[in-house]
This record gives sequence, C-alpha cells and structure tokens, in this order.
Amino acid sequence: MKIIKGGVTAPKGFLAGSASCGIKKSGKQDLALLFSTMPCVSVGTFTTNRVKSGSVILCARRLKKGASQAVLVNSGNANCCVGPDEIKDAEEITALAAKNLGLENGSVLMASTGIIGRPLPVQKIKNGIGGLVRNLSASNGTSFAKAIMTTDTAHKEIAVKIKIKGKEVKIAGAVKGAGMICPEMATMLAFFTTDAAIEKNALKHAFRESVFESFNKITVDGDMSTNDSAIMFANGTADNETIRKDTKDYRVFLNAVKFVSKELSRKIVLDGEGATRFVEVIVKGAKTEKAAEAVARKIALSSLVKTMIAGGDPNWGRIAGAAGASGISFDPGRMDIYFNKIAVMKNGTGTNAGREALLNVFRKKEIEIAVDLKSGNKSGRVWTCDLTEEYVKINAEYET
Amino acid sequence: MKIIKGGVTAPKGFLAGSASCGIKKSGKQDLALLFSTMPCVSVGTFTTNRVKSGSVILCARRLKKGASQAVLVNSGNANCCVGPDEIKDAEEITALAAKNLGLENGSVLMASTGIIGRPLPVQKIKNGIGGLVRNLSASNGTSFAKAIMTTDTAHKEIAVKIKIKGKEVKIAGAVKGAGMICPEMATMLAFFTTDAAIEKNALKHAFRESVFESFNKITVDGDMSTNDSAIMFANGTADNETIRKDTKDYRVFLNAVKFVSKELSRKIVLDGEGATRFVEVIVKGAKTEKAAEAVARKIALSSLVKTMIAGGDPNWGRIAGAAGASGISFDPGRMDIYFNKIAVMKNGTGTNAGREALLNVFRKKEIEIAVDLKSGNKSGRVWTCDLTEEYVKINAEYET
Repeated sequence: MKIIKGGVTAPKGFLAGSASCGIKKSGKQDLALLFSTMPCVSVGTFTTNRVKSGSVILCARRLKKGASQAVLVNSGNANCCVGPDEIKDAEEITALAAKNLGLENGSVLMASTGIIGRPLPVQKIKNGIGGLVRNLSASNGTSFAKAIMTTDTAHKEIAVKIKIKGKEVKIAGAVKGAGMICPEMATMLAFFTTDAAIEKNALKHAFRESVFESFNKITVDGDMSTNDSAIMFANGTADNETIRKDTKDYRVFLNAVKFVSKELSRKIVLDGEGATRFVEVIVKGAKTEKAAEAVARKIALSSLVKTMIAGGDPNWGRIAGAAGASGISFDPGRMDIYFNKIAVMKNGTGTNAGREALLNVFRKKEIEIAVDLKSGNKSGRVWTCDLTEEYVKINAEYET
Repeated sequence: MKIIKGGVTAPKGFLAGSASCGIKKSGKQDLALLFSTMPCVSVGTFTTNRVKSGSVILCARRLKKGASQAVLVNSGNANCCVGPDEIKDAEEITALAAKNLGLENGSVLMASTGIIGRPLPVQKIKNGIGGLVRNLSASNGTSFAKAIMTTDTAHKEIAVKIKIKGKEVKIAGAVKGAGMICPEMATMLAFFTTDAAIEKNALKHAFRESVFESFNKITVDGDMSTNDSAIMFANGTADNETIRKDTKDYRVFLNAVKFVSKELSRKIVLDGEGATRFVEVIVKGAKTEKAAEAVARKIALSSLVKTMIAGGDPNWGRIAGAAGASGISFDPGRMDIYFNKIAVMKNGTGTNAGREALLNVFRKKEIEIAVDLKSGNKSGRVWTCDLTEEYVKINAEYET
C-alpha cells in the first residue's frame, strides 16, 4: 500500500465540484458534489441519534433501495428539527441534481452539516446546482474537502493505492468534523471513494469494520450529532477481478480502507479546535472487548482527565477514578496505569514515578494512557484530545 | 418547617471541632470532627465507584456493623490508591479519636477528600486529634463546614426545625464539593445531624430517599469520585416519640430532610467554580422515570449544551441533539423544548421564538430547560451549571 496525492477524486472515474450558494454568511464555499461517472456500488452508515436530519433519513432510505452514484453536501445548515419539510426539501434538491447529472431520480444522496432548526435555503441551493455540475472535475478533490468544512481549521483527505491481482486499485476519503471542532453539532461527515470492483456485501463489511475501528473510536466531547454520515462509493473502473468477501484480495482491500479511515479519524482529533494534545487511551486485561472500550471511553470523556492533560499535570488519580466510574467490574487492587509506558500505578498503588519524567510526558504532543485491569485478556482503544479553555471559548461564542 | 441559624451543631447534643494539622500546604484547616454526646442511630450512603478510598470502605463496614457516634474528616488527601495501608491508616486514626472521645473503638467513622495516590500523613493527623477533641463545641458547626472544604469558594450548611407531636426537632447538614468545584476528584461529602428520636430503618429510608432526590440529581462534569460519602446521625435528644416509618411524623421528618438535602445540593451547583449559571433540566412525557432522568442527564452533561449556556446563546438544537443521543426511544417529531417556559421547538420543529426574549432568558442567573417527549407521563429532573473557560483553567492549573 502506498499513500498517493489527492483525495476523493484520486480513484478513477470520480469527479467533484464545489460552490458558494450563500448558506454561509461568510461567503465561503458551502455546497459540494461528488459524482461517479460510472454506476456504483454504494454503502453508508449513519448517526444513531433519535433526532436525525432529513438528509440522513433520505440517504439511508436510498442506500437501502439501490445504488447511488453521487452525493450532494451542504455545509452551514443541518436540515434538522425543521419539520416534515426536511425530507421534501432534500428530495427536491437531489432531484434537480440528478436531472443536471443525467441520472435517475433517487440515485443522488445528500449530506448536511451546520446549524439545527433553520429551514434549508432550498432556492439558494437549487440556484447553485447548475454551476456545481458544470464545475465537476477530477482535479477538484481538495475543493470538495474544503467546501464540506464548517469550523475545521484544515481540510482532511487522503488517498492510497494497492494492487489487487496485479491491477492498481485506489481508495480515498475526505472528512469534516467532529466534536470539539464543530460547535454546530459535532457532525462528522465522511466520503470514501474507490475504483475497485467489489461485491456490495464485501464493500459493506469492509466499510463498516473500518468505520467501527476508526470514527467510532474517537471522542472529543461525547456529543453525538443528528447528521453524522459516512458514505462509500466503489465504481469498478480499476477493472480488477471483482473482490469477494473473505478472500485474500478482500483482506488487502480491507486493510487499505482501515488505513484511510484511521488516518482520517486521527486528523479529526488532531484538528480539534482548542485541542493541544492527541491522546490514545488503551485498556488491557478486561473480560470483554466491550468492557475494555467502556473503560477507555469513560477515561477519554472525563472532563477531569481532559483538563489534566491540557494543564500538563500528571494527576493519575483522575484516571483511576474515571476507570472505577465506568460501571465495569474489576479489582481496583490489581489495576496498573501507565503514561507513555511509565508506570504511575501498580496493583492499585501509586509507584512514586519520577515527577520530572512525568512532566516530560505531558510536554509531548501525543500521549498514551494505558490501563491494565488484569481481570481478563481483552483490550480496547479510544482516541481523544485534551479539553482547553479555547474549546469553551469557541463553543460559547458561536453565534446562532 | 422553619430555617434556623447554624449548621450540624444546631440540633441538640452535637459538638464539632476543626484544626489545621498540616495536610494542606496552605496551612488552612484540614481536619474536622463531628461528635454526638449521646449514642446515635447512624446511616450512610457511599460512592459506587469501583475504586474506593480506604476511608469509605471502613465507614461502610462500621455502619453495617453497628451505631457510630462521630466522624473524623480530613481534607487535602483522599486516602485512595495507596494500597492496603489505606484501611489500616484509617483504623489507626479513628482508634485514637475514639480513645480521646471516650468511645468504643469502631464507633468513629472517617471521611477523606483531596488528592489521590499519596499516603495519608498519619502522624500529622494523629498529632492533631488531641487538640481537635479539646476544641469540640456546639458553636463550631460553621468551622466544621469550613474545614471540610477543598476548592469550594464558600462553606455550605443549613439547619431547620420542625414539630413532631408538639416536640421541637432539628435537622441540619453540611456539605463540600462537588464536580466543577473540586479538581481533586469531584468529591462530595455530606454530614447530616438531627436530634430526632427515630428508628434506624426509618432514618435509613428517609436519608436514602433524600440523597436520591438531591445529591444524586446534580451533575457538574459527570465525574464520579472515589470518596463520595453521605452520613447522617440521629441522637434522639429532642425527646420526641420515636419516629416510625410510614407514619405522619415520618412524612414530616422526611420532607425536612429532603428540604435540607435539596438546599445543600443547590448550594453545591451554585458554588461551581467557573460556573456562572444554575440550570434545571426537566424532562416530561417519558415512558419511565428512569428514561426521563436519562434524557435530562444527557442534556445536563453535554459539553455543547453547557458551553452554549455559558455563552448565553439560545442554540436549542444542541438540546434536541443531546436528547436524541440519550439512548432513550421517543418520537423526535413530537418533542417540545422550552427555555424558561418559552417554546423554542414544538413537535420537532423550531418555533421562531423571538431572539431578544431568548437572549433575555440566558442573561438570567437561573435557567430552566424543559423537554416534553410526549411519549408517556413520567418525568425527571437534573440540576447542573454551565461550562466556562474558568472551569478548564481551575482544573488544568491544579498542581499535584
């Protein structure tokens, strides 16, 4: 596997475009379109929030029904909590996009991110679609990644190439969000493309497993969006022998999708506005993977832990306290805690690790917190960032 | 019921004392003692954290075994995560206190709050006990409330009197913590006294129900301490006819204990360092009380909601998003949301409530957020405060 230049249009047969249609007051680009010139296998996974944007509902329905070939994204408005018009509006907009793209009605998906509770400016978006379609190009991957941003400080994209039985296959992704960097609602949008020929069932499993191990393992502030959407298109233009599930080719493909999604989820955490440190929380020695992840998540979500990291203060008691509050059963008298491999607690007791060495750990940009519960052999991992005054500032000052 | 002056020594037969024994570097008082001159009925409820302070373990054991008559409190050190010595140290300290008080070994409880992972300075505490006992007085209630503080900005106490069949009965409480105001570990300590004569089972139920409806319904940062302790003593010196469960007298007593604990939990939230607003989250129309509280808690814990309140910005979409992320099933298309009785969302749709009126809501010190799920007839309530830059500052700068 090799990292290559570009983003979602790096795989063959994908075009992208972006435009400013006036949703964002700043005049920044707020409309983006990703289009496969060939029919696609398409899969997606969406927020489990009970309150869902009409765009999410429409997307999920269309992906269930059949193959999609394009996705229209608007940033600046979530198309959520505005009533039954949400779905109607999304249908109207995507119908116009389908017409302009020469596609069947229903084969265009839609994703939205931004403020909740304001009706989508349908006419503005419709006015923008013609230009957006005319602007489609294979060199617009980065423009696409930029137009889907809200308060992200940098666009996030990556592309890789692999070989499947001698044929070159490309996989790419672009994301925006989430959490700390997204005061609107912590929305995470992810769009993946590949020119691989692959069975729908294989694509579905590879994408779900990758999302599960990456985007589902990051947490910034514990808030879950009404709009989270992750969508992947595979258009088969690489002309490889169709990848089937549980084959060697599948595993090569899966590893590449996992790599892309992990890199992108890492970029999300690193771009946390206000965040100054990247934190990996590893929990070992749990009875089940679920238990390990629950403990890791509780630590990663603890405001006391996150402010401790922001302050650079090795107050490991907060880690022990958060682990104990996870609801998971373990023997606290056996628990070990490490900061970047330095043991700070062994068997439930402080180790008197050198303070200078610990302060050094917290001066680094990346910190690993490892907890060994020694009550089983399963482990779990969560990525997060610190909680700084800047986070509060950004989210308190955000103007509706 | 009438509010009267004073704190834990307002009820007859209770003495308190405080001292500085050198646990706190600042030299502030860090040792406190509460003592009933008469044998007591005593009950307690403790943290459910898997990681527990030795002081908590000792307390829970002693309350299970028999009646206690005093509690020694140290602030500045949690007596937690230091290994098997925790319990031994607490036993040694309370044995000396019992000897000085002329009590049987085992009838003195202990509570600790402060930094985790440092051995308790046993000798310092033991050196302080003699003076502490000599200092005992019925006029030291407020000194007691002050000596148990860590980063609280104000001491918290209240006392009330009621009539039980013509006899005057007093109930009082002092608390410290929690959450936002307590970087060490968010510890909440509560000590209640009453001169009522009451059956142990009745006291146990009255205290548990009061704690459940007050201290268990406040949340500041979602962190749960290793040291949370709530203890109540009833010494019968009011000479009333013994209160039995499920009688009219019991209900009068219960209401007074509930009042005291609600007022004290309110004081805890209001004293949140960094907190500028008191927020009541009410969820109605849920299928069960548990479901209502789960939704209220998710809203009260959401960093996006809490920073929104700090910023004074009526971005109600964050409330809808948090409710939907609670894991509780409801129809988002029927949900209503109110800010201080002003409807901002009805039936899942924004109401276009006047912006100026909403901004006014957020200029107030106390804010009520009400959510009606309209999927049942049960309700729940949680009190919280806003999340400000000051919170992060306090917790990041705390020096271990």
